[in-house]
Amino acid sequence: MKSMTRPNSHESSVDVASVEASAKRHLIQPWDMVDQLGDEARPVMDRADGVYVYDGAGNRLIDGPGGMWCVQVGYRRPEIAEALYGQAMHLGYNSPWFSTSAPAAELAERIAAMTPGDLNKIFFTTGGSTAVDTALRFTQFLSNVRGKPEKKMILSRGDAYHGSTYLSASCCGKLRDRDYLDVAEDLVVRLSSPNPYRRPDDMTVEQFGDHLIAELEAKIAEVGADKIACFIGEPILASGGVIIPPPGYHKRVAEVCRKNDILLIHDEVVTAFGRLGHWFASEDVFGVTPDIITFAKGVTSGYVPLGGVAISERLFDEIERSEEGVMFANGYTYSGHPIACAAALANIEIMEKEGLLQHVLDISPYFLGRLKELEELPLVGEVRGQGLMACVDAVADKRSRNPLSLDKKVGERIDRHTEAMGLIVRPMYNMCVMSPPLVIERSQIDTMVEILREGILRTQKDLEAEGIWSASNAA
Amino acid sequence: MKSMTRPNSHESSVDVASVEASAKRHLIQPWDMVDQLGDEARPVMDRADGVYVYDGAGNRLIDGPGGMWCVQVGYRRPEIAEALYGQAMHLGYNSPWFSTSAPAAELAERIAAMTPGDLNKIFFTTGGSTAVDTALRFTQFLSNVRGKPEKKMILSRGDAYHGSTYLSASCCGKLRDRDYLDVAEDLVVRLSSPNPYRRPDDMTVEQFGDHLIAELEAKIAEVGADKIACFIGEPILASGGVIIPPPGYHKRVAEVCRKNDILLIHDEVVTAFGRLGHWFASEDVFGVTPDIITFAKGVTSGYVPLGGVAISERLFDEIERSEEGVMFANGYTYSGHPIACAAALANIEIMEKEGLLQHVLDISPYFLGRLKELEELPLVGEVRGQGLMACVDAVADKRSRNPLSLDKKVGERIDRHTEAMGLIVRPMYNMCVMSPPLVIERSQIDTMVEILREGILRTQKDLEAEGIWSASNAA
Repeated sequence: MKSMTRPNSHESSVDVASVEASAKRHLIQPWDMVDQLGDEARPVMDRADGVYVYDGAGNRLIDGPGGMWCVQVGYRRPEIAEALYGQAMHLGYNSPWFSTSAPAAELAERIAAMTPGDLNKIFFTTGGSTAVDTALRFTQFLSNVRGKPEKKMILSRGDAYHGSTYLSASCCGKLRDRDYLDVAEDLVVRLSSPNPYRRPDDMTVEQFGDHLIAELEAKIAEVGADKIACFIGEPILASGGVIIPPPGYHKRVAEVCRKNDILLIHDEVVTAFGRLGHWFASEDVFGVTPDIITFAKGVTSGYVPLGGVAISERLFDEIERSEEGVMFANGYTYSGHPIACAAALANIEIMEKEGLLQHVLDISPYFLGRLKELEELPLVGEVRGQGLMACVDAVADKRSRNPLSLDKKVGERIDRHTEAMGLIVRPMYNMCVMSPPLVIERSQIDTMVEILREGILRTQKDLEAEGIWSASNAA
Repeated sequence: MKSMTRPNSHESSVDVASVEASAKRHLIQPWDMVDQLGDEARPVMDRADGVYVYDGAGNRLIDGPGGMWCVQVGYRRPEIAEALYGQAMHLGYNSPWFSTSAPAAELAERIAAMTPGDLNKIFFTTGGSTAVDTALRFTQFLSNVRGKPEKKMILSRGDAYHGSTYLSASCCGKLRDRDYLDVAEDLVVRLSSPNPYRRPDDMTVEQFGDHLIAELEAKIAEVGADKIACFIGEPILASGGVIIPPPGYHKRVAEVCRKNDILLIHDEVVTAFGRLGHWFASEDVFGVTPDIITFAKGVTSGYVPLGGVAISERLFDEIERSEEGVMFANGYTYSGHPIACAAALANIEIMEKEGLLQHVLDISPYFLGRLKELEELPLVGEVRGQGLMACVDAVADKRSRNPLSLDKKVGERIDRHTEAMGLIVRPMYNMCVMSPPLVIERSQIDTMVEILREGILRTQKDLEAEGIWSASNAA
């Protein structure tokens, strides 16, 4: 494995010490330990190209998480850079309160053509959190318009991640995320995580699916359908650990929602724009047309902040029939930002021209198959995934499927080893998550898997040396 | 006035019919009348240059509102376009969860040097709404860290505008904005608008100032300081109609907050980055160092979505002393986005190189003086402003200072006339608001005022012809 260490070292073009000093003195980063501000800077990334990022020391690393589930077409795409430049020199901003722009209108039309069913009305925001916040506010709004002011609660699940505004964060169901932070607890009805790997011991996956639907129906009966506005869910729970609910789950949830007049929001911030080989996954992958879909990230491949909400026309037809002069007084200075929308259009054009959806369908069985080989390692409980998203779930032992205690940070240990060898994986507690740029090729997947295997082996060794874990007990 | 009509008509480069058709079919815009979706598209803006925008028909218009209070350095700045291109080709994205970038660290350092006092810790978001949402969540977070979970309420004022997420929208105090939309009413303590022009008839401005402070103290006494986390306020209430609170108000509010251990948040999304001739207005204009400042808009001149929060170091020192392992689990995929931060750095460089802060200080007396002349018109109750922000407040009559009923949309009427002559003003109910690009010159101000005067005269005629209003009764 020696050759993998710093595979392409060269001089850095960034003054790392100065960047680190500024960051330590002045920058608060997401999920920062704020009692230790200034002690440590996060690693400085200097430049990036294709599926690779180069850190401040000039080391080239495969970007396993694709930025943050977002860099679909890869880094350093001149088509997008030129779109940014061209739009900035043409119309760099326009107020969406009083005007519209060609890029915003064209992008809305393009996205409407990609969404399933009649989800043809598009509202743009600045990212995933504001997309979810808007979607949830829209369901509150609609209940008010319908004269059902009591119908406001939100069904959401354990291990969900929906964003970082107060309202979107309220729907998150992840471990530890809520320490010290408030959420609108009174607005949320919580369901358990639909993670088949961590289902109760006495259930088959099929029974677990039945159990989840029974839980949903019981919660609705308990709270009252007349109190519940919507169900929000990621088709695959991304940050929760690439959790794929049991077969048939999505359709059954959709049926229960329809039966109870509960709006179904699919949060496709991660799963849309090719991650699963389709523009949107709801219908094409899971056979479901929700009422509302949120998107962000991949829509611009992360080059410019942009998110949005696609809403069923049927809901507006209903408003049109029932009320007059109904304003949805929600919006952002940057809604439909012309440069963001121009970047999205360039991004979509790249994906079409290069056939990236088909590429994902073609290459993802190889990606998942190669990663699945890692299940033979004693520390790996499960490798799961779909399309170009995957998770390595490390366990104390394969029988219990329990993770090592979270303060052991097994994910971070693995990442530290893989980064030294040229691969970033996104550590999360006991898990490592991957969602590489969609342009990734077989040879790069091979390198990913090789490095990841070596990183896990080294982590196993460390854990054994520290007496935390033992391969012989893990089988 | 004839020469002002369509001052620079030429062929449009945009297919307006097609853009309008796409927008009508697919786009939901901010504050849209959603029972009428598809009936009408907002005017298509094609391109922009300097202080001018060109609509789809090729008409050149002075951009009175500067986009949406944001286009400080004007449109079509190659320095910013090149920064976008260059950064996209260098490092187009990096995950702030696991890395940092040179532009983010450098921008944080630059902004920390601009903020007053020890507001040296910078957290980046995607715009003003997410900046305010983060600032408010931080105050909840801090109360939890301090072991004061009951200290969570937010003091906010009538006519305030703080954004469009559920939490930031909850702090808005504007007319009609909350129709059909829910807010976190239980988190907000509402104060009246500090608008001296609409103060009670029997008060001097000085007495009105005393009254506002007395109201604040009474509310705190009523609710309990131990229940209130923060006061949030725009130093000048922008979207509420460029409301400048009475002299001394800001300092007295700050004192009351300090005395009661209530964090003071200045929402400088509009007033920062040169709008009042300074990087930030809190200390330089109003002599106050708040605990937290939010910013957005002008930081990139609107070219890329970006916002942020500057927080007092003292608060983190306190956390560091009191607790261990305190995570602020808040953040956005686009926090510290390298392209957004590179745009901001280019924007700041332009402002410095061209001396735009000084330009605003030099030219704003002329801007405000010329606009103030419009008070001689019978329909104009007051023209008020500071720096390069101003509001024309139209009234039924100058004695009562009451607006015409809001459905008469006097602001929109004026704007319709001025747009036909080459000037956009931002209509709001009975008001027109201006915040032009900071690069505006005297001759352009003269044109603005001339067109605006003519627009108001024409509106007066229309209102008289419709029997809605009469100049002879208005004096």
